[in-house]
Amino acid sequence: MEKSAGEIVGCDLDAVCAAHDRIRHFIHRTPIFTCRAINDRCQAAVFFKCENFQRVGAFKFRGACNAVLSLDDDEAARGVVTHSSGNHAAALALAARMRGIPAYIVMPRNAPAIKRQAVESYGGIITECDPTQEAREAACQLVMQQTGATLIHPYNDPRIIAGQGTAAWELLHDVSELDVLMAPVGGGGLLSGTAIAGHGFKPDIRIIGGEPALADDAAQSLREGRIVPARPPRTIADGLRTSLGSLTFAILRQHVETIALAEEDEIRDAQRLMMERMKIVVEPSAAVPLAALLHRPLGLHGQRIGIILSGGNVDLSPLFSAPGAAS
Amino acid sequence: MEKSAGEIVGCDLDAVCAAHDRIRHFIHRTPIFTCRAINDRCQAAVFFKCENFQRVGAFKFRGACNAVLSLDDDEAARGVVTHSSGNHAAALALAARMRGIPAYIVMPRNAPAIKRQAVESYGGIITECDPTQEAREAACQLVMQQTGATLIHPYNDPRIIAGQGTAAWELLHDVSELDVLMAPVGGGGLLSGTAIAGHGFKPDIRIIGGEPALADDAAQSLREGRIVPARPPRTIADGLRTSLGSLTFAILRQHVETIALAEEDEIRDAQRLMMERMKIVVEPSAAVPLAALLHRPLGLHGQRIGIILSGGNVDLSPLFSAPGAAS
Repeated sequence: MEKSAGEIVGCDLDAVCAAHDRIRHFIHRTPIFTCRAINDRCQAAVFFKCENFQRVGAFKFRGACNAVLSLDDDEAARGVVTHSSGNHAAALALAARMRGIPAYIVMPRNAPAIKRQAVESYGGIITECDPTQEAREAACQLVMQQTGATLIHPYNDPRIIAGQGTAAWELLHDVSELDVLMAPVGGGGLLSGTAIAGHGFKPDIRIIGGEPALADDAAQSLREGRIVPARPPRTIADGLRTSLGSLTFAILRQHVETIALAEEDEIRDAQRLMMERMKIVVEPSAAVPLAALLHRPLGLHGQRIGIILSGGNVDLSPLFSAPGAAS
Repeated sequence: MEKSAGEIVGCDLDAVCAAHDRIRHFIHRTPIFTCRAINDRCQAAVFFKCENFQRVGAFKFRGACNAVLSLDDDEAARGVVTHSSGNHAAALALAARMRGIPAYIVMPRNAPAIKRQAVESYGGIITECDPTQEAREAACQLVMQQTGATLIHPYNDPRIIAGQGTAAWELLHDVSELDVLMAPVGGGGLLSGTAIAGHGFKPDIRIIGGEPALADDAAQSLREGRIVPARPPRTIADGLRTSLGSLTFAILRQHVETIALAEEDEIRDAQRLMMERMKIVVEPSAAVPLAALLHRPLGLHGQRIGIILSGGNVDLSPLFSAPGAAS
């Protein structure tokens, strides 16, 4: 069973390599940062793959770009559709604009203005719906019927997973002899892609997920052997509030050694540590693996650890509203 | 007169090259970032030399490191001293620790705790004094008499200027065909070093300073042909509140085409733009040249512009104190 990853169609190292070939002229090859102070605190050598510097500010652009570029011309001409209000929506809109095709984004009526603006700035066509899962799916179906657009799920899609895996693929090419790969887990697309790239590249590399303790549905799912749905969202790591999908669940079961949990204050402290010491802007979701590494006994002292920093889309207005702030 | 820069002893391209040879194994070779959205807004190709990623979070480490490594063994053994409460103090403390010599830092009694901690964390020995210029200089003299330590001025010193010039030297090696170099100006050490490296490397490169309109003493000084002292500090660009020195004034007169001014809200907006779009943490002082470029008619459309981002030491606590912030 351990070696059957290839059985999941389109979810193997070849798919990741093909995705990288497809998207590499459109994405940023993001840099890898290290930090002496963080290495000292972790007693390990930590290599951060800075997907906060990726286009649209998150790894999501890799998967979206791969999905859009994987369509044949007829499919592409009819456009793509998704229901998401986060980074995936913005990423899909930009990828579609680059191919010159429409992106239909279904968003709940109460989505924050800043997320609408991001999608609109990349040329996405927004359809509003009621803020329920049923309404979102119904609105999506309607768009598909009316336009023939292809649904691009934010994570439960082999094209998305292969695309997200290209971040780890680059990291493994740029840093030698990694012992461990870590990534945050929400819907599981990034961690699935990371796992496939990692084990395809180096079969004995250890794959560890990071998840907020307040949104530990992936850890529970692996423990119970079934997809446990996400609880109502309370964590500050707003990118990690979703449940696993059938495909990501199957991949994570095969590949992931453990999912380490981080408390809210640990996530916030890790985010602050990276912003203060590394001088990079990261979102709370991106800080979850480091938070877990700093606070859980994962037995990784002396190891070479690659961490995918998922994104840097943070509301910075508190810094710029207080008098005398940001100086 | 235009070509007499070499007459100022120790302030020419050779000095910058020698400084780079001396310090290169101790500093970070910082990366150069670009940003599509900023290029679009400036209608130019802007290359940011990210000294916010430098050790101690600012370019200041380059000059301090060069000064400390320039001392002969006897001088070095007696240590170094400065009166500064900012990045220079932390940079000098770290450079001295690396050479295994004492760094005496004279600080006003009312200096912020966070600045004291930075100096102490790098092993600096703090001497407190009253918060006046006279008290600082007197305390410095006393330390020098008691210890024989060498005074390292934060900017009016050829070793410091040559060290700061290594940032531009790297930028000019890494990016071809730059038309313009920009740097913020406070005491003038960074802009002087940038100018010497720039004109030494490419005689027709244009050197432009950026200064807060609320601290426009360098612009006034160049206009009036004498050092106009800085006014009481009011700008948020707290690194730029100092007056020029005799040496930096002489160099800037020879090399600088203009000093462009930026208003406070323009500085803040430019800082926010870099943090939101480039996902990097920069201090207000670092944002001053971009603010001027965005808002003053400098005639740089279509040009290739290198900007030295001076540092990233920002108090981020407003982001982490508001409930629900930083997500």
